[in-house]
Amino acid sequence: MSSKIPRNPDDDYTAEIIAERQAFIEAQSNVELTHIKQFSFDPGVTRGNIENLTGAVQVPLGFAGPLLVNGQHAQGDFFVPMATTEGTLIASYNRGMRVAREAGGVKTTVANEAMQRAPVFGFENARHAQDFGRWIMSNLDTIRARAEETSSVAKLIDIEQYPASRFLYLRFNYTTGDAAGQNMTGKATNAACQWILKSYQDAAIIDFTLSGNLDTDKKASYINTLRTRGKRVIAEIILPNKLLEEQLHVRSEQMFAARQRSTQGAWLAGATNNGSHAANALAAIFIATGQDAANVAESHVGYVYSELHENQDLYYSITLPSLIVATYGGGTNLPTQKEALGALGCVGKGKVQKLAEIVAATVLCGELSLGAAVVAGHWVDAHEKFGRNR
Amino acid sequence: MSSKIPRNPDDDYTAEIIAERQAFIEAQSNVELTHIKQFSFDPGVTRGNIENLTGAVQVPLGFAGPLLVNGQHAQGDFFVPMATTEGTLIASYNRGMRVAREAGGVKTTVANEAMQRAPVFGFENARHAQDFGRWIMSNLDTIRARAEETSSVAKLIDIEQYPASRFLYLRFNYTTGDAAGQNMTGKATNAACQWILKSYQDAAIIDFTLSGNLDTDKKASYINTLRTRGKRVIAEIILPNKLLEEQLHVRSEQMFAARQRSTQGAWLAGATNNGSHAANALAAIFIATGQDAANVAESHVGYVYSELHENQDLYYSITLPSLIVATYGGGTNLPTQKEALGALGCVGKGKVQKLAEIVAATVLCGELSLGAAVVAGHWVDAHEKFGRNR
Amino acid sequence: MSSKIPRNPDDDYTAEIIAERQAFIEAQSNVELTHIKQFSFDPGVTRGNIENLTGAVQVPLGFAGPLLVNGQHAQGDFFVPMATTEGTLIASYNRGMRVAREAGGVKTTVANEAMQRAPVFGFENARHAQDFGRWIMSNLDTIRARAEETSSVAKLIDIEQYPASRFLYLRFNYTTGDAAGQNMTGKATNAACQWILKSYQDAAIIDFTLSGNLDTDKKASYINTLRTRGKRVIAEIILPNKLLEEQLHVRSEQMFAARQRSTQGAWLAGATNNGSHAANALAAIFIATGQDAANVAESHVGYVYSELHENQDLYYSITLPSLIVATYGGGTNLPTQKEALGALGCVGKGKVQKLAEIVAATVLCGELSLGAAVVAGHWVDAHEKFGRNR
Amino acid sequence: MSSKIPRNPDDDYTAEIIAERQAFIEAQSNVELTHIKQFSFDPGVTRGNIENLTGAVQVPLGFAGPLLVNGQHAQGDFFVPMATTEGTLIASYNRGMRVAREAGGVKTTVANEAMQRAPVFGFENARHAQDFGRWIMSNLDTIRARAEETSSVAKLIDIEQYPASRFLYLRFNYTTGDAAGQNMTGKATNAACQWILKSYQDAAIIDFTLSGNLDTDKKASYINTLRTRGKRVIAEIILPNKLLEEQLHVRSEQMFAARQRSTQGAWLAGATNNGSHAANALAAIFIATGQDAANVAESHVGYVYSELHENQDLYYSITLPSLIVATYGGGTNLPTQKEALGALGCVGKGKVQKLAEIVAATVLCGELSLGAAVVAGHWVDAHEKFGRNR
Repeated sequence: MSSKIPRNPDDDYTAEIIAERQAFIEAQSNVELTHIKQFSFDPGVTRGNIENLTGAVQVPLGFAGPLLVNGQHAQGDFFVPMATTEGTLIASYNRGMRVAREAGGVKTTVANEAMQRAPVFGFENARHAQDFGRWIMSNLDTIRARAEETSSVAKLIDIEQYPASRFLYLRFNYTTGDAAGQNMTGKATNAACQWILKSYQDAAIIDFTLSGNLDTDKKASYINTLRTRGKRVIAEIILPNKLLEEQLHVRSEQMFAARQRSTQGAWLAGATNNGSHAANALAAIFIATGQDAANVAESHVGYVYSELHENQDLYYSITLPSLIVATYGGGTNLPTQKEALGALGCVGKGKVQKLAEIVAATVLCGELSLGAAVVAGHWVDAHEKFGRNR
Repeated sequence: MSSKIPRNPDDDYTAEIIAERQAFIEAQSNVELTHIKQFSFDPGVTRGNIENLTGAVQVPLGFAGPLLVNGQHAQGDFFVPMATTEGTLIASYNRGMRVAREAGGVKTTVANEAMQRAPVFGFENARHAQDFGRWIMSNLDTIRARAEETSSVAKLIDIEQYPASRFLYLRFNYTTGDAAGQNMTGKATNAACQWILKSYQDAAIIDFTLSGNLDTDKKASYINTLRTRGKRVIAEIILPNKLLEEQLHVRSEQMFAARQRSTQGAWLAGATNNGSHAANALAAIFIATGQDAANVAESHVGYVYSELHENQDLYYSITLPSLIVATYGGGTNLPTQKEALGALGCVGKGKVQKLAEIVAATVLCGELSLGAAVVAGHWVDAHEKFGRNR
Repeated sequence: MSSKIPRNPDDDYTAEIIAERQAFIEAQSNVELTHIKQFSFDPGVTRGNIENLTGAVQVPLGFAGPLLVNGQHAQGDFFVPMATTEGTLIASYNRGMRVAREAGGVKTTVANEAMQRAPVFGFENARHAQDFGRWIMSNLDTIRARAEETSSVAKLIDIEQYPASRFLYLRFNYTTGDAAGQNMTGKATNAACQWILKSYQDAAIIDFTLSGNLDTDKKASYINTLRTRGKRVIAEIILPNKLLEEQLHVRSEQMFAARQRSTQGAWLAGATNNGSHAANALAAIFIATGQDAANVAESHVGYVYSELHENQDLYYSITLPSLIVATYGGGTNLPTQKEALGALGCVGKGKVQKLAEIVAATVLCGELSLGAAVVAGHWVDAHEKFGRNR
Repeated sequence: MSSKIPRNPDDDYTAEIIAERQAFIEAQSNVELTHIKQFSFDPGVTRGNIENLTGAVQVPLGFAGPLLVNGQHAQGDFFVPMATTEGTLIASYNRGMRVAREAGGVKTTVANEAMQRAPVFGFENARHAQDFGRWIMSNLDTIRARAEETSSVAKLIDIEQYPASRFLYLRFNYTTGDAAGQNMTGKATNAACQWILKSYQDAAIIDFTLSGNLDTDKKASYINTLRTRGKRVIAEIILPNKLLEEQLHVRSEQMFAARQRSTQGAWLAGATNNGSHAANALAAIFIATGQDAANVAESHVGYVYSELHENQDLYYSITLPSLIVATYGGGTNLPTQKEALGALGCVGKGKVQKLAEIVAATVLCGELSLGAAVVAGHWVDAHEKFGRNR
């Protein structure tokens, strides 16, 4: 019979209650938490970040770089913090960054930005849902006011409407400053919806939930691919053939041909990304910089598009339509994470687009590096050398 | 002008070179790495896990539980380690686990298992690709032998064939013991392919790459949903209405109705998962236990299926068709991660299915808890109380 | 060595040239075209509908009904013309209509409407594409004017922007009166694009094509599901359990349970429609009424959503987000097709929404009928009785 | 108050009852069915093809060709019957065929073939479903025998298993001779399932329906794309640049570049086909030759893959993974339809692969022609000349 994890209702972040929990877990599992107990941060700083704090996981941190970015917000060389346990990962990104830098760096563009909460309202029938949709549009200003008064940051861009059966699914799109904004938009949309629920008189609202899954939080989806979630970032580079041959031992035409095959394969597979491994960079940087690692689910979606120029230059790009990053909130203020953000010059106000661009540029370098390794037949060899064979 | 990250070609994991790198990053970024420098593990243990090791990220760790699992491999109560910076996450999972436990626990089933590498071979035309496909089938035994001799663990289940244009995409499916197996299957498939490339005489193989993107590594995909990647795990529970009302302040019929709306929403959205937030549990447990966090991309795919019984009991389940976990390899042997695995009783041989079941059961509890919170209108409130408003 | 199909450059619709072509095909294939030669229409009426006119295919036509529709545009009883060669199809729809009628008829709602052409513009890089996107928005009035001056009917609703790599994909949404509008919107958008190509000065437009595949013409797609193509029509009904038992030999709870299973199956399958056979009604009515049968590709997408009420009533609905129909243009004016349209009271101005509603109501009746047959185990029997066993 | 459509329970295909129905529809709708009444076939031949036969729709028929096919089954020149009401369609296909012929014809390969019925079985929980899955595998021979004894044609290839929640979804794959086979496989699978329902003792089968939507009949789906439904046909051609320039006024590199843009667009759109308009050829040939036009839903899925050779030749291909055609059953034996099949030399035993290849080759020619027209800017012009502007 198990007992409960100890908690202290007055202050659950004291050294005492943490020690009590550690002892409890050790007793329950018969395992000593020698390393988990060791952390350098003041437990109180994690208030709002975690419950039942019991220790810390130490994730090895390395840096890849210099990464040369020619962005709208990120400009110059960066050393990118990556927290990972996957051998060859940093070596591979590093290699891609070296080549990209010799090619003049990665150009990045934040093409769009939106964070959302997507409530759903149910009615007796579709006709009533339609009436409601018209009412929403004609009351947009008030709805916006109600939403925005919950936050000094969130700005409502628009409300998309998606009718299906007797429901109207709404998608409230916001800009959310330097925060990722999932909670901020939840709060704002909830306030708006409470006003709607109170004010709409034309036909009974039978059902309401604050999310009808068109957000689509922590899930890859086509709606996010199309309509953007977080930042829509495009990273581009032009790679001379000579550089590819010298540095990556592949010709641009080989890279291009392999891309065609992989795109066809991704289509057959019904994959969310036609590239190689965007998720690797995302997970590693997300953990390092205090992002929500669960957002790898949305953020890893992307499309690698390349072209072979007549002079054998290779245009190489990736579009990440739903990259979710923050420089405020979440784990961004925790000690190690903040230092990692600091190493990128992304601490302080107005840095979130910069971070988004660095991430996208890193992803592109990883596509380049692994893409070339697969073509050159070095892929398995690299894992033999740097990684473990699991 | 940036310089290069310092490396020591003889041994890149000494205290000296790590200190040099720390100083380098501090100099480059003008940020002190006070906390990143503090880690309790011997740097040498990360050999094969990371390059350019510079320190560690400390991710706050808490436990949720007791989680009562009635699995094929996991049985009894578990306290689940979750490394996260997202407030309310552990509280929410904990709440779901409490309710699940009162309902008798979560039943889990490992319905299938397979890890793959998916090479692609190109020919002059589809006719030649077809001939090649027949040859592959008639040489299956030899191909299997070549693949399996690279590993004492990997066993080739079968080779699926997917023809498109002038290519034949193959998907080699393996069991990989306690490892996740991406590298093991890469190595095995590469050996098999080298033999194929040498032995096939009937028509020229024009193109070959070891991955044609039907694996589909680090990407959500339909092929993985259908054909399994990693473990296909099903978690189920039957929840009495009374329990839901008392503990979660929702009626089973409300939960069921909200599920219907969310499933319709997910379909509209083209989402990879009709549930709420499987990725949250996955990311938190993956980081805690040394899994590859990039595999959240594949693993977060799932389908929540529920039924409302006549007696108002709620059957509630999630199917995770591509859950990738390991108890061997990757970061599973790092000190804090191994302790976390140990807390689950998942250290040692033959524990990977057990881990998969615990993960799936945890995911289900999170669906239950957040699902109920959204229905009861407590969602935003919970973030007000436990989390930050970002 | 084959010769060419005879053509008459002056008038290719004369009896003489048609006879010549018939003789040519007979000579080439050694098959007598006894029946193909027999048609009752004046060949000249097919000008603009077909080239190389050689005869006609006779598709058997039956009617199903009465179908009771309670629509925004269609009201009352209809006898629905269905041209098909699939045995049991009309019998099945007829059965569904009978039950639907006893339940009070099908409620239909045209929730949205849009037809589109989606050009793509390419630039040196994403940054230039972004500038272009802003220019488009600030020149919307002129672009609209250029588009709309090509037609007395087409009205530009808006222009959606989808950036990816160095391209900006635009989606021009129009209303198109009683026509399906693919050509009308092509012409309008082309005019707008010609003006854009001439007027945009800020950065070189390197690439342009009138369709970048975000239309997405003659293809099922998520963008059409989300954003509507043609008409977005919702058909709904409430079916008493007693009626289902008496007429279809199933209980409402059985129907509901089977729907849940099928929805889960459709998700696993990655299907464009979670229902049974919307395409059957669409193809049969499209052929009968002179619609473009290729639009079955887009139009068959849909989502069946049902609910089981406490009193065992079954709420049953289908949402068709991309139903493409016309009462003007295409084959709608051909003699047999016009008579079929006439039988629905859909000849003349302003009837296209009415037709859309009748089609959607028919689709719902077919879902009901086949859904019940599968549940009741009558499905195979029905084909034994009415159909052929192929 | 409407009355019922007249039926004759003894023989519903007599001239008298047909005339009665015609009069009934005329009375109900106040429209004269002058043309619908005119058909040249004996009504009795439609027994098994339609119920409530009331007349016929005349769909204009033209031919495109010669189409030069270098197939495994279709060889030589063909004149392809296309029944359509969409102006420019035949002209466009004809143009593509002319160019393809000058390039040496279209190479076609039937890469795979399977028709399926996909029953679903429900159990108390996933564990029971798993046991059942093992039982199915160990009783495969008996299941096959039960299935195959229902038909002299259907051969069971294998049974795929897809577990989800408490269900096991099976997919029975068959070859079905010259028939499309949906009904044949339904009957065979039903017989097998009846034996299973009777014989399985290990745990209660709680639910069963003959289709759990993994077939996926009359719907586009990823499972069909991956695992084949009907025929998987690949059509390929190599087009010299000179030919494209002279005949289509485009350079191969332009065609290739436009393809890249369209593929990216299709990915963004979440489209089932990255090409232009496969559905057009399919609908037109399907109607002409007595195929089930509803199968445009499945059959229109495809992937256009092209490559630009160093000598500027263009490799151009389309893979149609779920092309459903028949030369037996359905409408293939109706007089006009049989003549159309005859014109292709596809009447008689063992011709279904030949038909599949002709269809796929036609689709490829249409992609080529429309693809070139869009690039050359002739698209809108062509509709101005040949079509109507709707």
